[in-house]
Amino acid sequence: MNKFTSVQDIESLPSLVDQALKFKANQFHPNAYAGKSVGLVFLNPSLRTRLSSLKAARNLGAEAVVLDISKDGWALEFEDGKVMDGNKAEHIKEAAAVMGRYFDVLGIRTFPGLANRDEDYAEELLNAFIKYAGVPVVSLESATRHPLQSLADVVSIKEKWNKTEKPKVVLTWAPHVKALPQAVPNSFVEWMKVADVDLTITHPEGYDLAQEFSEGVNVTYNQQEALKDADFVYVKNWSSYTDYGKILSQNESWRFSMEHLALTNNAKIMHCLPVRRGVVMDDAVLDSPNAIHLDQAENRVYAAQAVFNELLK
Amino acid sequence: MNKFTSVQDIESLPSLVDQALKFKANQFHPNAYAGKSVGLVFLNPSLRTRLSSLKAARNLGAEAVVLDISKDGWALEFEDGKVMDGNKAEHIKEAAAVMGRYFDVLGIRTFPGLANRDEDYAEELLNAFIKYAGVPVVSLESATRHPLQSLADVVSIKEKWNKTEKPKVVLTWAPHVKALPQAVPNSFVEWMKVADVDLTITHPEGYDLAQEFSEGVNVTYNQQEALKDADFVYVKNWSSYTDYGKILSQNESWRFSMEHLALTNNAKIMHCLPVRRGVVMDDAVLDSPNAIHLDQAENRVYAAQAVFNELLK
Amino acid sequence: MNKFTSVQDIESLPSLVDQALKFKANQFHPNAYAGKSVGLVFLNPSLRTRLSSLKAARNLGAEAVVLDISKDGWALEFEDGKVMDGNKAEHIKEAAAVMGRYFDVLGIRTFPGLANRDEDYAEELLNAFIKYAGVPVVSLESATRHPLQSLADVVSIKEKWNKTEKPKVVLTWAPHVKALPQAVPNSFVEWMKVADVDLTITHPEGYDLAQEFSEGVNVTYNQQEALKDADFVYVKNWSSYTDYGKILSQNESWRFSMEHLALTNNAKIMHCLPVRRGVVMDDAVLDSPNAIHLDQAENRVYAAQAVFNELLK
Repeated sequence: MNKFTSVQDIESLPSLVDQALKFKANQFHPNAYAGKSVGLVFLNPSLRTRLSSLKAARNLGAEAVVLDISKDGWALEFEDGKVMDGNKAEHIKEAAAVMGRYFDVLGIRTFPGLANRDEDYAEELLNAFIKYAGVPVVSLESATRHPLQSLADVVSIKEKWNKTEKPKVVLTWAPHVKALPQAVPNSFVEWMKVADVDLTITHPEGYDLAQEFSEGVNVTYNQQEALKDADFVYVKNWSSYTDYGKILSQNESWRFSMEHLALTNNAKIMHCLPVRRGVVMDDAVLDSPNAIHLDQAENRVYAAQAVFNELLK
Repeated sequence: MNKFTSVQDIESLPSLVDQALKFKANQFHPNAYAGKSVGLVFLNPSLRTRLSSLKAARNLGAEAVVLDISKDGWALEFEDGKVMDGNKAEHIKEAAAVMGRYFDVLGIRTFPGLANRDEDYAEELLNAFIKYAGVPVVSLESATRHPLQSLADVVSIKEKWNKTEKPKVVLTWAPHVKALPQAVPNSFVEWMKVADVDLTITHPEGYDLAQEFSEGVNVTYNQQEALKDADFVYVKNWSSYTDYGKILSQNESWRFSMEHLALTNNAKIMHCLPVRRGVVMDDAVLDSPNAIHLDQAENRVYAAQAVFNELLK
Repeated sequence: MNKFTSVQDIESLPSLVDQALKFKANQFHPNAYAGKSVGLVFLNPSLRTRLSSLKAARNLGAEAVVLDISKDGWALEFEDGKVMDGNKAEHIKEAAAVMGRYFDVLGIRTFPGLANRDEDYAEELLNAFIKYAGVPVVSLESATRHPLQSLADVVSIKEKWNKTEKPKVVLTWAPHVKALPQAVPNSFVEWMKVADVDLTITHPEGYDLAQEFSEGVNVTYNQQEALKDADFVYVKNWSSYTDYGKILSQNESWRFSMEHLALTNNAKIMHCLPVRRGVVMDDAVLDSPNAIHLDQAENRVYAAQAVFNELLK
């Protein structure tokens, strides 16, 4: 593995998940990568990703340094051959390469603008870092994917499911007051397709994910039908991909409630956090023993640790 | 000890102070809590608390991570059952619980609004963290108390006082240009009542502290009388508790000067910092050998170290 | 060495450079200064200095803590005897002294205002830290010098030059869209005068550096003549010292191009970064094998490590 930006980058999902669970059982390995260092670059605020990645690196004995970069304070030029006489003081060629000289692994978090679909899905910033850093790059969430979250999600399903048959996993859209990226659902779908599960996606019309993600997956606009017999339900809002970045519906019937839970096979309920209670999901669900959102958040540490372990090898 | 928010939380003040002084003599114990981690959440800027807490944790071999959270960037919902369709993206239930999954001890710094007394004294944010974190919580100063400062103050008095009789300790109000919280004086009084000292509080009329703190303590509006024979004088401004959050006086006669010092028993002069020279206290006092404010600041490290040592056990 | 603010502070440049190169060959010494700590105070944003200094300290086993201080959030009073009834909450006497209690070495980064030359060149903030910190102070770039950059520059020349004769080193001014400090050129000149090189400075009229730096150095307004036979060319913009802080020229003929490079002895091209491509220097030069700007950036780690090593001894 020489980068970690999507499920395509990994060699074996089962062995990566096993490694994460081994780290969960025995997390502190101070001599594993002593003298190595991981740089974590955030262009947007972050709570879980920041803390879990820091902890993951340090659990391996590696130094971890967070660099918060506001877009205003550190405007980077991406265009090749541009005369840099505007407000951009540094070219990605130098910025990424210098950080590559300082760190053995470089994590980078970016967000979509949700205004221009082609631009967001081109992942210009992430790809430029990969091109120029000269060291392995880890996506700490990009415009279109959140692979560390998805790996933690697979780990969370794995540790809760001890039957031999495949679990039925449902990704259901939920309402929200703001337009959110498709990164978490895209990524969840991409990883579930590789994991050993039976996946269904359900959402209102107009919320279809990009074909590269949804193809080959059972998709239905009928939420009730989708939830039937579900063993795991991932509840998540996203804005429209087809009518890009728009909120097309705030239909409250999609807010996940105890009535929705009753339709399932006593499913475990998942969310990547932060979650707006009473908007995305009812308090009763989040406060029920079915909710495993805190376990997912905790597993972010071991997911990152398994990934750093591969890349620092 | 399962939390550290007031003097009520500790088991034995003398043994905690002894431990702090032992750490001062021999501060670096890299194997004591290797693999443990302390999260330090700041909702307000901090210099001394941030640096001393970081150093304290690392002196014990524990990782320490600072998380700066501006109130704007990370608006938390506290109300139970609220439909979160406003500007608050995360509920304290998830925020505290997730951090509790990442850290073995959680420090939190909050400030009073100084507008609504009942709200400030309810310590909603601190108590919510305690309720939901699932790990021991340390107050890094709250709306109404600053226990790490107070423990450092007790340590500072202890190391400067080698007589067998009780020292006379005076807390005197001083002027300031801004309305400040009562947290430091409240806390100082609370800890001095447990420490083996003879305490007097002096301030202008209208500056009485809440009864839960001042009861049982000698309080006088006559500063000159209070300072007589004092061995230690804590100089500090606070805004009114009774006329809540208001500045009732900027009477310069209360600014601590060499004339005030001359009234005492060659007292050691204390302040928690930052201090406005020429407003709260004269330069001559701060620059005199009587001033021990820098020792207090240094002792913040060993106070925090003694507390983390108890909570990480 | 009891501080590091200019080349005057060091005992032997050759031995400091040798130490830096030894650290480059073998950088990780976790037991060298375990239990020691380095505080890094930034009053301005920083990428390279922040990351390289952090890494340097940790490579030596010392803790390193970054403190970002916006001028707004932490206005310091410098004037002695001032009644602090304005917006400045803390005096440098306390701020520096407290940090000196927490750290074994204190780094501080300041910037010139470029409005008042006497004020900038007085280095008030840096000197106040030195006066009150009580521990060795390292300049992480000040108003008039950038010694860690200059040491890294000497290291970079040393590792690229394996002939016995002195290399010809040229510092050439280049255009820029903003008024920049003289700190980097001042400092480069100061260090080159001590290093074993043949130095020439070239710039348009009006850009002469302060006499304390330029005296004894060959200075010419004829860039073409200066570049002839150069082995190393340092390309850098600065604003006028004589017409203080002003941009007097944006003459594009000074933008360093392949035509400029052709005049040299196949020179290595240096820049401290960040560099505006197409404004200061052409892409073709920066993307050529002659450019060693990334090596300079990397050597910042080993320069800082050699300095911390001296000061922590």
